[in-house]
Amino acid sequence: MNEASINAFFTPRGVAIIGASARQGSPSNQILKYSKEMSLTGNVFPVNPTAKEIEGLKCYGSLLEIPETVDLVVISVGASKALNVAYEIKERREAVGDAGAVAIVSAGFKELGTEEAIALQDEMIATIKSCGARVIGPNCQGVVDIYNGINTTFSVPPVTLKGGLTIISQSGAFATSYLRWAKDHKLVGINKFVTLGNMADVDVTETLAFMADDERTKVIAMYLEGTTDARKLMDVAKSVTSKKPIVAIKAGRTAAGSNVAHSHTASIAGDDNIYDGAFKQVGIIRANTIAEFYHTGRVFDKMPIPKGNRICILTVVGGPSTICVDALTETGEAQLAHFSDELVTSVQAVLSGNANVGNPDGYIDMTASITPVMHKDALALLMADDSIDGIIFITTPPGFIGSEDLAKAIEEGYNAVPEEKRKPLFSVLMAGNAVGDCRVMLEEKGFPTFEYPDEAARVMINMIRYSNYLKHNGVDERM
Amino acid sequence: MNEASINAFFTPRGVAIIGASARQGSPSNQILKYSKEMSLTGNVFPVNPTAKEIEGLKCYGSLLEIPETVDLVVISVGASKALNVAYEIKERREAVGDAGAVAIVSAGFKELGTEEAIALQDEMIATIKSCGARVIGPNCQGVVDIYNGINTTFSVPPVTLKGGLTIISQSGAFATSYLRWAKDHKLVGINKFVTLGNMADVDVTETLAFMADDERTKVIAMYLEGTTDARKLMDVAKSVTSKKPIVAIKAGRTAAGSNVAHSHTASIAGDDNIYDGAFKQVGIIRANTIAEFYHTGRVFDKMPIPKGNRICILTVVGGPSTICVDALTETGEAQLAHFSDELVTSVQAVLSGNANVGNPDGYIDMTASITPVMHKDALALLMADDSIDGIIFITTPPGFIGSEDLAKAIEEGYNAVPEEKRKPLFSVLMAGNAVGDCRVMLEEKGFPTFEYPDEAARVMINMIRYSNYLKHNGVDERM
Repeated sequence: MNEASINAFFTPRGVAIIGASARQGSPSNQILKYSKEMSLTGNVFPVNPTAKEIEGLKCYGSLLEIPETVDLVVISVGASKALNVAYEIKERREAVGDAGAVAIVSAGFKELGTEEAIALQDEMIATIKSCGARVIGPNCQGVVDIYNGINTTFSVPPVTLKGGLTIISQSGAFATSYLRWAKDHKLVGINKFVTLGNMADVDVTETLAFMADDERTKVIAMYLEGTTDARKLMDVAKSVTSKKPIVAIKAGRTAAGSNVAHSHTASIAGDDNIYDGAFKQVGIIRANTIAEFYHTGRVFDKMPIPKGNRICILTVVGGPSTICVDALTETGEAQLAHFSDELVTSVQAVLSGNANVGNPDGYIDMTASITPVMHKDALALLMADDSIDGIIFITTPPGFIGSEDLAKAIEEGYNAVPEEKRKPLFSVLMAGNAVGDCRVMLEEKGFPTFEYPDEAARVMINMIRYSNYLKHNGVDERM
Repeated sequence: MNEASINAFFTPRGVAIIGASARQGSPSNQILKYSKEMSLTGNVFPVNPTAKEIEGLKCYGSLLEIPETVDLVVISVGASKALNVAYEIKERREAVGDAGAVAIVSAGFKELGTEEAIALQDEMIATIKSCGARVIGPNCQGVVDIYNGINTTFSVPPVTLKGGLTIISQSGAFATSYLRWAKDHKLVGINKFVTLGNMADVDVTETLAFMADDERTKVIAMYLEGTTDARKLMDVAKSVTSKKPIVAIKAGRTAAGSNVAHSHTASIAGDDNIYDGAFKQVGIIRANTIAEFYHTGRVFDKMPIPKGNRICILTVVGGPSTICVDALTETGEAQLAHFSDELVTSVQAVLSGNANVGNPDGYIDMTASITPVMHKDALALLMADDSIDGIIFITTPPGFIGSEDLAKAIEEGYNAVPEEKRKPLFSVLMAGNAVGDCRVMLEEKGFPTFEYPDEAARVMINMIRYSNYLKHNGVDERM
């Protein structure tokens, strides 16, 4: 048999869920429900010898009994039963020619570290691969494709927003936490979601390579524990980053963390310094914290890449802005923009008499005497000025400006210039859930918001790093 | 006249609000409303020559007309009118003997950097001080004392929770952002709240010294831009930290940030390396990010100080825990605890057969086969073990465990040991607002929760730093 394409995971003509369960709330029930709810074709086939029908779908006794085309097989049975399913996949593929993509959600394999578990995984994978089928997992949550209506997870709800972010993760829990974090305030829209678990066949490198040519993937957020061939990963990453950004968080940086990673997905974390240097060389943007990872991934989807490192601060709050400027300038990669006399005069003209425009250079404190129109007008002037590459707007939204008015002012200020003039605009709303409605309005329109001004600064630096990488590698056309 | 005590700001027999306004939503109206709503005595006196009554309170034409005792005067008029108020304060204090505490909320003084504004501030302050009264501000939001019902701000709502945290800040917006951040999930309970603005009289050093002996202050969270006498600040801080922790965030670390601070409160930020070294020497715990500052302040209020640096990870999610262990161990200040064989056996006995107990040492992955009772029993065993100094529990709460059951299990596990055995327990709930109810239940019972496991680790390290400081300075009795 020919080897199946990775594409089969994302565009299967039919999906079989082996071990689908009728027990409400169980993972194997949830997987079926999500698959059914999201499917654009309706070709979802539960397999469970003890049931005739689950969730209103005809249930089959085995994979071999399904009369229709099944490109994607999801294995969600106990580890001891998984080997038998592998042989059925081989049999089916050799007989019918489909079943080329296999997502093994079951755990209890190599990550346990026992000889039996390792042998079981090896035989299962070898069996499936012997007929040219490809495997994601085991010990993973498989794949989601929001646009194509594919979902093998029990944790990514069908209501997840569409966007240009693709998540690749060795940890299922880590990837789903990202979406749960984002949900309430609509912070993230995704395209694809791939959790790789033990990476017994398809690994992070091959997945990355696939996403390079995936048109709907605008940015890749990658959680990495380790890989057996770091050099190959970096070679592939280099070709990807010339087309779209990769944001990575690397786990197992320390000896203790590396031991945890090994007990988790049998990964070998490797020397962190080598990874760190390699990431820089191939243009992977490394996040130092989970919060930074979450935000950096999403801003690349929502905002254009900055043309340079000259950032303007527009604020109504001095203290938080001081901390923002510290974080922005401390690495030397970003600087406050230089305001021309004309810009200072024109911004002063649209703000109140108390406003501080340009002390220090690149910094504007509108003070508390503000209106929505001032926000809009000031933003429009800053957007139009070519000596500014990005804007961080910081506010503790005052009670006398309504959420809708504030969101609209930001949107109108940003959109006052044509698309080719646009630059990243981050809005820091320091108010917890108190202005949740304003946050959601902005996020829905594609304007990233933040809670902490220093985090916004660090994420802006990450955007600048990618911009610099493209420039230094002669890849300017995207900007 | 004798110099008034700082105490008058927090326990005034009467409060006059100069410039109180009837205009709904304006700061000067809000200050009056909050003062009235929170006052335990009812002695709140609006002063405004254009009104007879505001918010149901008799309004006076000037401070001099108030027939009752006024210990605290809040100035909330335009800068140009503030000098006249200063002379009235002097007149009243010399005639009646009260009016010893003055909070100047008005802005438009030294922070503008103009000669006139500086001269105006100087004359105003000199006038007030000449009669022994003390000044907080100008360009600040003044003080809050939640227990005594005092509130001179327009931004700290009367519903703010009571607790042991006292906030001292040169930036009003920064301090109120902390409370807005905390509000929805009830993350923080405060005692006092002091914003100092331009620090023309009472400064951060004197405020710190006062809090050393303030019994309800269990921990101090301090936002600092700069001080004219750093040595004195450190001397005072040293005596405070022998009694209670100080968590600080220092703004103006960079040249650009320092310029912003100067335009904000006329502060001189000073050399950051000197501050950094001095903080360490006197036991001030420095937060590197706003998020870390917010959390570190609050955990010292909610949890006991750890006796050592041996931390146990209890988790259901491998990936996020790997990142947590990286963050926990990377500075060398914390380590994973060592489990005795007895502990491993007893923890294994209360968890499912799949659970990983002690691989690596100090680490427990309960896996997805969990019940509330397992959480409770495992926590109780870890709490009782003297080779563990702190616990970080990490979960993406599964759908099959109810929020209330989870919160109760955590509480019962923690409380299974007597108070003297208690150690810090952080609960990381990686789920955004999806488990907001569980978060609130835990926070209300005094159990700090987190969104990010690496942040929890960094905050645990901050607790360990303070514990180490106390040990190395012979101050062990608090632990």
